[in-house]
Amino acid sequence: MIEPAYVAVDWGTSSFRLWLVDRAGQVLAERRSGEGMLAAAKTGFAAVLQAHLAAVEAPAHLPVLVCGMAGAKTGWIEAGYVDTPAPLAAILKQAARVPGEARDIRILPGIAQRDANAPDVMRGEETQLLGALGLDAAGEALVCMPGTHSKWVRVKDGTVERFSTFMTGELFSVVSRETILSLAIANADDAEDVVSFKTAVKAAYEAPAFAANLLFGVRARQLLFGGTPAAARETLSGTLIGTELAAGLSGALPAAGVTLIASGRLATLYRHAFDALSVTVQPIDADEAARCGLSMAAAAIWTK
Amino acid sequence: MIEPAYVAVDWGTSSFRLWLVDRAGQVLAERRSGEGMLAAAKTGFAAVLQAHLAAVEAPAHLPVLVCGMAGAKTGWIEAGYVDTPAPLAAILKQAARVPGEARDIRILPGIAQRDANAPDVMRGEETQLLGALGLDAAGEALVCMPGTHSKWVRVKDGTVERFSTFMTGELFSVVSRETILSLAIANADDAEDVVSFKTAVKAAYEAPAFAANLLFGVRARQLLFGGTPAAARETLSGTLIGTELAAGLSGALPAAGVTLIASGRLATLYRHAFDALSVTVQPIDADEAARCGLSMAAAAIWTK
Repeated sequence: MIEPAYVAVDWGTSSFRLWLVDRAGQVLAERRSGEGMLAAAKTGFAAVLQAHLAAVEAPAHLPVLVCGMAGAKTGWIEAGYVDTPAPLAAILKQAARVPGEARDIRILPGIAQRDANAPDVMRGEETQLLGALGLDAAGEALVCMPGTHSKWVRVKDGTVERFSTFMTGELFSVVSRETILSLAIANADDAEDVVSFKTAVKAAYEAPAFAANLLFGVRARQLLFGGTPAAARETLSGTLIGTELAAGLSGALPAAGVTLIASGRLATLYRHAFDALSVTVQPIDADEAARCGLSMAAAAIWTK
Repeated sequence: MIEPAYVAVDWGTSSFRLWLVDRAGQVLAERRSGEGMLAAAKTGFAAVLQAHLAAVEAPAHLPVLVCGMAGAKTGWIEAGYVDTPAPLAAILKQAARVPGEARDIRILPGIAQRDANAPDVMRGEETQLLGALGLDAAGEALVCMPGTHSKWVRVKDGTVERFSTFMTGELFSVVSRETILSLAIANADDAEDVVSFKTAVKAAYEAPAFAANLLFGVRARQLLFGGTPAAARETLSGTLIGTELAAGLSGALPAAGVTLIASGRLATLYRHAFDALSVTVQPIDADEAARCGLSMAAAAIWTK
């Protein structure tokens, strides 16, 4: 039987993923749940983790490496930040050990940009960057990481130089649920409407200052011209993503295009968005990148 | 005793204002309440209006002129739209009479921009424009009307040529209450922070594509550098208003500057915002403009 070498945990705001990994980096078992930082802050981080460790029959001595919001001030323990310019190699050297636990449990730090004109923070994405780009990738990359809080990151020769967070996903959530646009989107089916989406991406990319006007247009268009709730939803989504792309793509574009680290529905949406603007992307699966980054860090810490 | 000539009602989404007016346009009595369209749609428009008419002892024969969302599809009766380019004089000719009422009750139409690339609607603001600019104002005006759904209107020689609605006020409301920024703003006192506000207006005006990033910066700044909840709230407000101004001011600016139709706190905020950008404004009180527009329309309909 293959012996497990460590446990890797991606512990986000609202999701929890755990992998039991052997010395060669192979996944022996996996767990996924909705017990993210918000839920675990109520029920207890140690209890949540222990239940999943028991479910995969992890030996008592097996070390655990965690990335993500579990290391936030409102998480389990505060794992601090590496400041920009942040070498990705510095991440795995500053893992914070959870005190009072017999098992060796460590949480990777985030990255902070302590620029008074552009303050920013990330937690979890630094591990995806590590997994996607590796420790010593030469050259420049512009990385787009879509999500509740999308990150756009400039990486040069293995160092995170600058990054910007956009509240795109959270804006989609509250605008679609809590504003007048909820009337336009109500009862939308799951039908894709790539044409409406791409049209909205282009319009917002070309006139990002008008984003709040293009949003109202979703409602006005339906009042004056009709249209399906699904088209309204895709137009809202395209408007917000197109505005984000106008900012994210405003600097120099590397020859290889944009490195897109995303999974599932978001990966599809952003590929459509970049396609609407004829921008080349290098797609990387976000789940895979997180697991890979945790494995690289765990290997450096425990199996060297 | 002075005889009343008509009743004027500004019936918005969430507010109701009524004035008893004499033949000379003087206000004899006034009522204000929160029984806007949303509330009246539940309790009955006729009953709400009748209660206020009784409170000001309006004679049974006295006609009533209404503007605003009471004329929407979801209002009392649908009062239709005048299409752009819309002469303000056309507004008062197309008032819709409420059927089944002994009293002569009419609702003014809104304005629709039936442009598939920039669909838009207004209801209520057309009456403020009438009151603020008059029927036959020569020349060009760029009008800013802040609110839940801010309107920017190009008027030329008494005709509404184009307009754009921005969801600025509604975005402020949902972002401050329902997103991660609620943590940054929680327990903010009412202290003004004009410096934070103006700084945010300028930053967003200069880089409107980065609006969703500047919003996240409100939270990141507090995490990394501290700062009061009031400063966070003013930065959020300035970011949204600065983005709106980047779009609204993107065309030609008339020599007289921007005509700002606003009341109370919003009037103060927008005057600070225009001041931050060194743009001249001609301020007009929005309440006064609505009453004046209704009076002009009522005089044309009933007392000519």
